[in-house]
Amino acid sequence: MAKKNALTVCVTCRRAGTDPQAPRDGARLSDALAVRGVPHDRQECFSACERSCVVVFRGPGRWTYVQGGLDPDLHPDDVAEMARAYAATPDGIVPWRSRPEVIRKNTIARIPPIEV
Amino acid sequence: MAKKNALTVCVTCRRAGTDPQAPRDGARLSDALAVRGVPHDRQECFSACERSCVVVFRGPGRWTYVQGGLDPDLHPDDVAEMARAYAATPDGIVPWRSRPEVIRKNTIARIPPIEV
Repeated sequence: MAKKNALTVCVTCRRAGTDPQAPRDGARLSDALAVRGVPHDRQECFSACERSCVVVFRGPGRWTYVQGGLDPDLHPDDVAEMARAYAATPDGIVPWRSRPEVIRKNTIARIPPIEV
Repeated sequence: MAKKNALTVCVTCRRAGTDPQAPRDGARLSDALAVRGVPHDRQECFSACERSCVVVFRGPGRWTYVQGGLDPDLHPDDVAEMARAYAATPDGIVPWRSRPEVIRKNTIARIPPIEV
């Protein structure tokens, strides 16, 4: 299996009420992560648009977390922190208290590793 | 990688407004699928409780679909139909028109295959 980034960012997300002519919130979140040197893949639409912005943490043998409610201006550091914490676990389960608040409050779904 | 069922069913889901003393809706959905001979795994909580009942279609090299809004009395045949359609695809993408209506209307998230 190809090695892939554990973090994937939807770049088509628009948060409710934002200017439809402005750059996509998801693309701005991806850009903000790139500026911080956070490795990630870009994805067009996770079909979770109602809870934009949305990212996914996942990896071989790990739990997958679909996370929403992210603001590209407020939360890039939280996403970066969660990405580091997620990468440091063997199974993708970051202890609840170690998750940034925006992550704790906006889990859209978690999916067990397919290998289990 | 171990071969796993493409369908995983949350067995702790309770739909809003249902009797808290009654058997779990998710467990009843799993039972209804078992009666129909639909292979699936059982999972405790996908953290998508607000959109119960929830199931996940996924597999190596395939798109993952998190699906909610399922009623164990109304929708077992729809889940069975989607499971067959999903299994028949090479990549997990079932054409929109071929998806049962309850599936089309209740996609919580879709996630691309990690191998892509």
